Amino acid sequence: MKKEQRLYTPGPTQIPPRILRAISRPLIHHRSDEFKDLFHEVRERLKYPFQTQNEILILTSSGTGAMEAAISNLFSPGERVLVIEGGKFGRRWTGISQAFGLEVVKFPVNLGEVADPEAVDRAVAQDGKIRGILTTLCETSTGTVEDIQGLGRVLRGSAILFIVDAVSGLAVDELRPDDWGVDVVVSASQKGLMLPPGLAFLSLSPRAWERVEKSSSPRYYWDLREYREFGERKLTPYTPAISLLFGLKEVLALIEEEGIEGVWARHRRLAQATRKGMEALGLELFPQRPSNGLTVVRIPSGLDGEKLLGTLRTDFGVLLAHGQEELKGRIFRLAHMGWVAEGDILRVIGALELALRKLGLQVAVGEGTGAAMDLLMGVNR
Amino acid sequence: MKKEQRLYTPGPTQIPPRILRAISRPLIHHRSDEFKDLFHEVRERLKYPFQTQNEILILTSSGTGAMEAAISNLFSPGERVLVIEGGKFGRRWTGISQAFGLEVVKFPVNLGEVADPEAVDRAVAQDGKIRGILTTLCETSTGTVEDIQGLGRVLRGSAILFIVDAVSGLAVDELRPDDWGVDVVVSASQKGLMLPPGLAFLSLSPRAWERVEKSSSPRYYWDLREYREFGERKLTPYTPAISLLFGLKEVLALIEEEGIEGVWARHRRLAQATRKGMEALGLELFPQRPSNGLTVVRIPSGLDGEKLLGTLRTDFGVLLAHGQEELKGRIFRLAHMGWVAEGDILRVIGALELALRKLGLQVAVGEGTGAAMDLLMGVNR
Repeated sequence: MKKEQRLYTPGPTQIPPRILRAISRPLIHHRSDEFKDLFHEVRERLKYPFQTQNEILILTSSGTGAMEAAISNLFSPGERVLVIEGGKFGRRWTGISQAFGLEVVKFPVNLGEVADPEAVDRAVAQDGKIRGILTTLCETSTGTVEDIQGLGRVLRGSAILFIVDAVSGLAVDELRPDDWGVDVVVSASQKGLMLPPGLAFLSLSPRAWERVEKSSSPRYYWDLREYREFGERKLTPYTPAISLLFGLKEVLALIEEEGIEGVWARHRRLAQATRKGMEALGLELFPQRPSNGLTVVRIPSGLDGEKLLGTLRTDFGVLLAHGQEELKGRIFRLAHMGWVAEGDILRVIGALELALRKLGLQVAVGEGTGAAMDLLMGVNR
Repeated sequence: MKKEQRLYTPGPTQIPPRILRAISRPLIHHRSDEFKDLFHEVRERLKYPFQTQNEILILTSSGTGAMEAAISNLFSPGERVLVIEGGKFGRRWTGISQAFGLEVVKFPVNLGEVADPEAVDRAVAQDGKIRGILTTLCETSTGTVEDIQGLGRVLRGSAILFIVDAVSGLAVDELRPDDWGVDVVVSASQKGLMLPPGLAFLSLSPRAWERVEKSSSPRYYWDLREYREFGERKLTPYTPAISLLFGLKEVLALIEEEGIEGVWARHRRLAQATRKGMEALGLELFPQRPSNGLTVVRIPSGLDGEKLLGTLRTDFGVLLAHGQEELKGRIFRLAHMGWVAEGDILRVIGALELALRKLGLQVAVGEGTGAAMDLLMGVNR
């Protein structure tokens, strides 16, 4: 029997069957009253997992598209932004900003570490010309969660726009944009929101909207003024990914049922259990400030990461992610993001124990799952 | 019993159940070998319905996104393009080109008419600085199909890039880009390709690729060099709409089974039958050179188009499209595009007969369907 495979990858994530059923509904037309009702409803209800009172704009694209929309709508060529670069997705902000002719001041962070808000504050003050700060909620390349609340605190009162890529991390790690002073949140469908990839999201504060009016950067598909204007009529300017909107409505019901604090708490508990499990197996965690969406582990010296993940995939049906770019071969990434429960954690830790043994490591089978269960179920062994 | 509704709208179109099932498969990861095999396969097989030897690039976006990708990759600010403007989608080329700082020479065409290739040739020769011609295969706002072959003939031998928006029209109206000298074809998933919206496609000739290297327009998500480079490794640069790629594989099987000439011939026959049916009901067709993807009909004076389409929708479960912008209230649009067979045509013409009667028009019920059947089945009445 071919093994059913479960995704423990940091996007796309495993999709609940209920969502898969919803996206296979026959289409409705994107100018019909039925569509208008659906679209208006999901936009209103999305404010809850986004924890914002700002309108949510829905784009048909990958998350990177919404990042480009943020840059091209908020800044003009020659304007200066500070990018917190702690990994691949921080660097993506730099790439997009430079493509649109912005002046980028890099704030480099060692891989696996986060930016110290006070140090960012000093860098911004010293520079004096920064118009926006671009960062990442969950940097999935290192498994790190930035201190968004701390950054918001030091930026409060300044005219600098605070823009957070929460493609990874939304509905996973705690994020309260309105309370924390985040102006723009970017996200996408295929991570905490448990949908297939294809939708991206943006929310903008009122002062971010003022910038949109002033930007001279070229944009058409990404012109957020069009999305706002059509949105007021419960429409999209271009034909949207209707099937995914069917799924989004179901996702919102799942999140509302659990409550967003409940969603965050579940991820926190599962992440803690996973980390305990890894430590019990003698594995070393990579990030200093780990996201609750994934656990990133250093590959022990002498172990072939390709072989480890290959064994996990073919022998145990669990798909983990490799390190990317300079972290290739140095780490593996185990995501517990979105549709994840206790049993999924035990399954993957158990598989990891067996795979490590199979590859010749002296692992006490049961130690990792036991430690995770201790935390999850409060069992004293 | 609530009436099941069938889409006779020019995108999105009705989706075959087999495709709906395919898109609800559990996801695979976009960096896995299984994905690479799927992605490489659909890209190769897409060349057949596109009738090109050029690589097909697959973007996650609406069709408008691929239009923007064409403009931002092929031209630099200040360069001059000629846009054939015969309706809403022709004007979209103008809008995008102007947003990216191109100089647009408009070649206006009366609504429902097409551009005379000889006249375009003269306009281009007179100007002397045109770098590209932008047109539309099927202008769905008027139901017109441009003479792409004729335009290609007059442009042959020139250095002008010939770019066709075939979002509507691909796998519907005959299109042979390589034979006809089309450099760039843009399309999308939700029309002739019988998929939900969310994927867009581009093919570029070798000389179009040379322009991509030279363009100074800002782009990141749309940077086609990235799609080409990742494509060589059977990958996408950003997380793609994986579910729709599952569906695309099934769509390609459907098209290959019928043959692309068969697909074109079926649309031609169904379009002819629909036009015969309309004429038999005393209705006047709008376009001079009708696309085989939809039939656009003038609303008889004294008839309320809103009421007509409302009755068709609520009483007969068939969803047609209104006119847009300046054609609002003057026409209705009946699409037979994608997953359409004889019975669908009879159903909609029958519904139209009854709806017209219900609204007080003297219509001989059976005349429209009879005329359509004459053509479809070769029955002599």
